[in-house]
Amino acid sequence: MAKSKYLHKPVDPFQIIGNDPISHILDRMGSISFQGRNLSNAFQIWKEMLKDQTTIFMGLAGAMVPAGMRRILVYLIENRLIDCLVSTGANLFHDMHETLGKYHWIGTSHISDEILKDEGIDRIFDTFAVEEEFYQADKFVGQFSETLDLSRAYTTREFLFHLGKHLSEIGKEKGILSAAAENGVPIYCPAIGDSSIGIGLAIHGKKSRHSFQFDTVKDVIETANIVINAKQTGVIYVGGGTPKNFIQQTEVTAGYLKGDVDGHKYAVQFTADAPHWGGLSGCTFEEAQSWGKIQKQARMVSVYVDSTIALPLVVTALEEEKSIWKDRKVPSFQYLNDSL
Amino acid sequence: MAKSKYLHKPVDPFQIIGNDPISHILDRMGSISFQGRNLSNAFQIWKEMLKDQTTIFMGLAGAMVPAGMRRILVYLIENRLIDCLVSTGANLFHDMHETLGKYHWIGTSHISDEILKDEGIDRIFDTFAVEEEFYQADKFVGQFSETLDLSRAYTTREFLFHLGKHLSEIGKEKGILSAAAENGVPIYCPAIGDSSIGIGLAIHGKKSRHSFQFDTVKDVIETANIVINAKQTGVIYVGGGTPKNFIQQTEVTAGYLKGDVDGHKYAVQFTADAPHWGGLSGCTFEEAQSWGKIQKQARMVSVYVDSTIALPLVVTALEEEKSIWKDRKVPSFQYLNDSL
Amino acid sequence: MAKSKYLHKPVDPFQIIGNDPISHILDRMGSISFQGRNLSNAFQIWKEMLKDQTTIFMGLAGAMVPAGMRRILVYLIENRLIDCLVSTGANLFHDMHETLGKYHWIGTSHISDEILKDEGIDRIFDTFAVEEEFYQADKFVGQFSETLDLSRAYTTREFLFHLGKHLSEIGKEKGILSAAAENGVPIYCPAIGDSSIGIGLAIHGKKSRHSFQFDTVKDVIETANIVINAKQTGVIYVGGGTPKNFIQQTEVTAGYLKGDVDGHKYAVQFTADAPHWGGLSGCTFEEAQSWGKIQKQARMVSVYVDSTIALPLVVTALEEEKSIWKDRKVPSFQYLNDSL
Amino acid sequence: MAKSKYLHKPVDPFQIIGNDPISHILDRMGSISFQGRNLSNAFQIWKEMLKDQTTIFMGLAGAMVPAGMRRILVYLIENRLIDCLVSTGANLFHDMHETLGKYHWIGTSHISDEILKDEGIDRIFDTFAVEEEFYQADKFVGQFSETLDLSRAYTTREFLFHLGKHLSEIGKEKGILSAAAENGVPIYCPAIGDSSIGIGLAIHGKKSRHSFQFDTVKDVIETANIVINAKQTGVIYVGGGTPKNFIQQTEVTAGYLKGDVDGHKYAVQFTADAPHWGGLSGCTFEEAQSWGKIQKQARMVSVYVDSTIALPLVVTALEEEKSIWKDRKVPSFQYLNDSL
Repeated sequence: MAKSKYLHKPVDPFQIIGNDPISHILDRMGSISFQGRNLSNAFQIWKEMLKDQTTIFMGLAGAMVPAGMRRILVYLIENRLIDCLVSTGANLFHDMHETLGKYHWIGTSHISDEILKDEGIDRIFDTFAVEEEFYQADKFVGQFSETLDLSRAYTTREFLFHLGKHLSEIGKEKGILSAAAENGVPIYCPAIGDSSIGIGLAIHGKKSRHSFQFDTVKDVIETANIVINAKQTGVIYVGGGTPKNFIQQTEVTAGYLKGDVDGHKYAVQFTADAPHWGGLSGCTFEEAQSWGKIQKQARMVSVYVDSTIALPLVVTALEEEKSIWKDRKVPSFQYLNDSL
Repeated sequence: MAKSKYLHKPVDPFQIIGNDPISHILDRMGSISFQGRNLSNAFQIWKEMLKDQTTIFMGLAGAMVPAGMRRILVYLIENRLIDCLVSTGANLFHDMHETLGKYHWIGTSHISDEILKDEGIDRIFDTFAVEEEFYQADKFVGQFSETLDLSRAYTTREFLFHLGKHLSEIGKEKGILSAAAENGVPIYCPAIGDSSIGIGLAIHGKKSRHSFQFDTVKDVIETANIVINAKQTGVIYVGGGTPKNFIQQTEVTAGYLKGDVDGHKYAVQFTADAPHWGGLSGCTFEEAQSWGKIQKQARMVSVYVDSTIALPLVVTALEEEKSIWKDRKVPSFQYLNDSL
Repeated sequence: MAKSKYLHKPVDPFQIIGNDPISHILDRMGSISFQGRNLSNAFQIWKEMLKDQTTIFMGLAGAMVPAGMRRILVYLIENRLIDCLVSTGANLFHDMHETLGKYHWIGTSHISDEILKDEGIDRIFDTFAVEEEFYQADKFVGQFSETLDLSRAYTTREFLFHLGKHLSEIGKEKGILSAAAENGVPIYCPAIGDSSIGIGLAIHGKKSRHSFQFDTVKDVIETANIVINAKQTGVIYVGGGTPKNFIQQTEVTAGYLKGDVDGHKYAVQFTADAPHWGGLSGCTFEEAQSWGKIQKQARMVSVYVDSTIALPLVVTALEEEKSIWKDRKVPSFQYLNDSL
Repeated sequence: MAKSKYLHKPVDPFQIIGNDPISHILDRMGSISFQGRNLSNAFQIWKEMLKDQTTIFMGLAGAMVPAGMRRILVYLIENRLIDCLVSTGANLFHDMHETLGKYHWIGTSHISDEILKDEGIDRIFDTFAVEEEFYQADKFVGQFSETLDLSRAYTTREFLFHLGKHLSEIGKEKGILSAAAENGVPIYCPAIGDSSIGIGLAIHGKKSRHSFQFDTVKDVIETANIVINAKQTGVIYVGGGTPKNFIQQTEVTAGYLKGDVDGHKYAVQFTADAPHWGGLSGCTFEEAQSWGKIQKQARMVSVYVDSTIALPLVVTALEEEKSIWKDRKVPSFQYLNDSL
């Protein structure tokens, strides 16, 4: 049938079948084209990671918690479909807000922001939040910091672990921070000052005349140690930004510390960025191979899609294939406590 | 709970539930944010159209048939989830190619195009086709034209209807053209010369010293008549381009002919374009309201997503809610035969 | 200095120099990166075309005339920096509107479209137009058609030539259509029905009970003949859409007619689309090489930029290097009159 | 002439005039549409800031130094067209690399990254760098840190000031860091660990058994104090990411500390992102008004364009209008030294 060695398998036009589980739908989308095929590939590569004793990093950027992704992250943590999370501060702050029983609201982008300002409503594209409640959460963070040992610096992982433990006790909902603390999943936040967590600590510290100290350089060492201690690593990027770069650079740091580091073996990205702007957020995994951040033989895919579409679908599909990963041996990170 | 009249309903963080039908998943995505919510809204608005005795136009742009969307289009036509199709010529040509038993192939975008050229393979992003087979299809179109009355001009609808009838008889697979011919769904192609159909006719005509004539202006009148004869209209745009503009302008033409035309009442667009470039493909339905192409009170949504993700999901979800539309009274277009 | 054969020339960080002509600025941007470098390359490749006896096609899509690009197009035509124009119908209609002394208006995208509707204002992103004036232009087109020979079909080139001649006589401003008619630059409009020109002809024809006939297939032959008669061809795409596809396919048609066609030798595209959606508008020129539409050794660049930024800069820079092209021998298209 | 109060000023089609300074070209682009107009507005708003005794923050994201933007940043700092810089770590690292006499190289994105890996070349889209030289710069940072007081934590501003001073002494080229240190322009880097600066410090600290401490929370306070001490503030965002968010949040923190903070008064963004993905990088300044980060009456514009196009043009245009700003009274930041 085929007339060239480059022709292996025909596109199989998608057949409409009702009540087909999303895992099957995604499987079948592997035989169509463009981003539909890539979304399917992301599902397949994630499954391969889970089967192959891989330590899985997730990078989380974009307003994913206000967008309704918190429970998906909780699911991923509790079922250990990811092993280590690197996040923007905003997502963790919004997670704390929801864990404390507050909401984000279905809003619209077609509205006067001046009116919203007067109503005390903060807008995140098509989603609203009550500004006053964010102020309360800012203060909550500041007060929480008093429970820590103010005479020393904390890695962001340590700080977020203790915050998660606290939320686990007092929270009204299970959140990313509390689930991670309960399940041994370390969370890093390389730009923690750049968020309402930073604001809360800054304000509180200003009053109490104490500036809370983060050991951000130790975060760098720790995450490199995770790479060094792993049989192999995989990455899943929800958006780009600081979390993606931070996880990518673990390979460089690990290379310094250990010498023979190959790069991540599996790589999935959900992004709405594009390579031709030259930034790290939109860059391809091929580009990362030149840096040694991704293995030459890596299994990798970039899916150009809003993560609010990709995550509900792909994670539901993973749940449907639980048999693959339910007995997965998850990495333990006890060595982190004495990483320096 | 809410502190402002602008706060109606909280975001409901998406819960992972295995084996939940995609129609339920999409329903639940209506309570998250960003394009996930918009994809859900597209599903809801399409259902509303189907319940509300709406004549539904679909605009089809982008390489959707090579991408594996042919059977979805056939499904939409056979089940009359759309009533009139406006397409680029390329999609109809590729449909014919597949109907004649040929394939598109799973390829890759990471390959030397010079090698592909030497192999006789045409690339469409990550999808391949055999150039020689396209030449055969070009010739098929030219020969088919001999079966028509060469002494008069055809609307693109007439031409494509006859081509569909012919493919219905000789085709190895059911296609868009053949399904439409069998099910009374008119297809228009405003830029039919701008495609391999145009090339096929041009080459054949050059040899036979006859230039096949299309009555493109009559296409304009006919589609306006569809609007005038409809109780109300809805639109679903897969991409932008000529098909979107052509369907949008039916309201302007109908306004001239009848006087009191309101604009389309329902509007859905799946697009990877953006409004800020100023083009028609990416423009919002709000903008279209200023022109009277979309009703002031229309139900409308633009979903920023690759259609190869949106179509498999949304159409499968529609299949799951067949009870809503299985007894739908579909418009008949018999009046088209004497529209001038 | 360099340590690898892949390192030829360092990036030369851009130096701020006041009153440096834009042609020099663009030259210097050739030594920076990303789309800044690509914009510079577009300027260089256009100059190469002009020096190399190339027949230059321009494809024009997007609302470029409402956006203030009319005089740039007039400049390109009068100075013969392009030889053949393929356009959407909308740009030609808006050109006619401005040539007749009407305006587009500086508007905003932050406004209620319902209010605009009530004011009789049509919005094009951040630009306004008076709907009533568009109606007048619609009628003007219809009445103009009466001056033609209604017993035969016209190529879009012939129709637009006669329309241009007429506008040349009665217009208040020089426009694209009138300049092209005066300067022997053929204009094609593959989807002419899909525009207000189509609407104007349809409405008028409905009243006068005559459907104006376009010979769209002959357009296909004619543009292929332009390729066949050219020493070599170059393309400049302002946006994608039907104009890009139509110019690309001239190589395929010419290949049928003549046999040994190589593809366009020079290729420049200004676009806000991206390759990964799989459509023709955003596809790379590399992809086009697999089809033989672009030469294997072509000089080519895609610049990811809004054309309202690219055109004023690049065309001003070309004006500054007039010495290169002022004695250019331009192709004549007299053979078009007997192309079949 | 105009028929509605919404019609104030017609679009003035752009006229091609050779040797017109870019400042004039940009002025005239204010009367066209889409991003061309927005680019002009960015130039105007920047000039307004300079005339209006505004403290100007710049956020710098994306691989702008490898892309050849270093000297533009140096120009902006030396001429005080910006007052405070917030940057990703990568841009500062690459600046240091170039200041030390090393290069980035003109490369291409059409190349095998496996070959580049073997050649020791790191790719940044279409730009190359020598990996070994980056390793040297990593080590340079580590060794530099030894010159500081390791018994205390540094704000990123302090650290980068001292690094700039050092580079000022030993550098072969003037860079962002050295120019800023010489000209009293504070630089903040909220995610400094997330970069090769972080890697360099981590590796060095691992060997020397000392983890360099950054006082990232104090960065938050300091930048809020800059807002509080300013008559008013303006922002210029080159890309989004952490720098944009960090500058936006200064208004929130300042609001806590002082109570009656209005938001930034002037706001310009050059971005290739889009609002509909919901992230902070692409969000509109209108959205920021709901949060009080941007004043209700602010002068603001988002330009959808690659910064490698925008910066060379807009900054050259500013140089041409030196008379406006040459006597500008620039803010001094001496108060920063005792900000807590």
